[in-house]
Amino acid sequence: MNTNQTPQLEFIGQIRTPYTEVSQCPNNIQSQDGPVCEIQLKSQYHQGLVGLEAGQKILVLYWLSGANRQPEMMQVKKGTFALRSPHRPNPIGAAVLPIESIDEGAIKVRGLDCLDGTPLVDIKPAIYFEAQS
Amino acid sequence: MNTNQTPQLEFIGQIRTPYTEVSQCPNNIQSQDGPVCEIQLKSQYHQGLVGLEAGQKILVLYWLSGANRQPEMMQVKKGTFALRSPHRPNPIGAAVLPIESIDEGAIKVRGLDCLDGTPLVDIKPAIYFEAQS
Repeated sequence: MNTNQTPQLEFIGQIRTPYTEVSQCPNNIQSQDGPVCEIQLKSQYHQGLVGLEAGQKILVLYWLSGANRQPEMMQVKKGTFALRSPHRPNPIGAAVLPIESIDEGAIKVRGLDCLDGTPLVDIKPAIYFEAQS
Repeated sequence: MNTNQTPQLEFIGQIRTPYTEVSQCPNNIQSQDGPVCEIQLKSQYHQGLVGLEAGQKILVLYWLSGANRQPEMMQVKKGTFALRSPHRPNPIGAAVLPIESIDEGAIKVRGLDCLDGTPLVDIKPAIYFEAQS
């Protein structure tokens, strides 16, 4: 594939959080003691949640729409991809969190870090490997 | 934000893997005994890797460009978002893997599941919480 092509995202829903201003958002996803947030899918995608269960970990991808896509020059000596700052070429937020509960077309989780109304990009079962020590 | 807006992705590089046909790709990311794959950034993003180190776990996001974005009716009784199939509204692949090594503008990891030449969307340090048992 030609990597100069630029596909468009389709938003599949939105995320409801307690945060209405960026200054209120935590710097990162929080552990399970964070506030309850609701991931709401558009009606045509409600069926897509069939098979997910409370307790299961999901990877949630969302679009940090207020972000500046031109990475800033940071004072810290780390590059864009060594940081989780929203200021990156593709401002996609990512969180791996357990499902608290599922209702018709909506999933409750704890501890998301984004603004209320953040557009939802994807949900999928989380897979990761433990560190080998 | 109006969730009917559809932002465009910008590809930041590509992923080199041993797989030239979909039939060769593993069904999912593999553990650390998978083959070495190379994540190559476009030259303007080389500086973005500064601060990442071998052994560190990263979340890699990539665009599964051959995917049908209209989810198929599956025989299995699971919805699109309960599966990691590439056939989803936004065919973004996601893998959490440790860095094997970093060179100028390129990261080696093991066990990615995508085709050679897959467009790269993002890299960020992985954060996840262990299951509470």
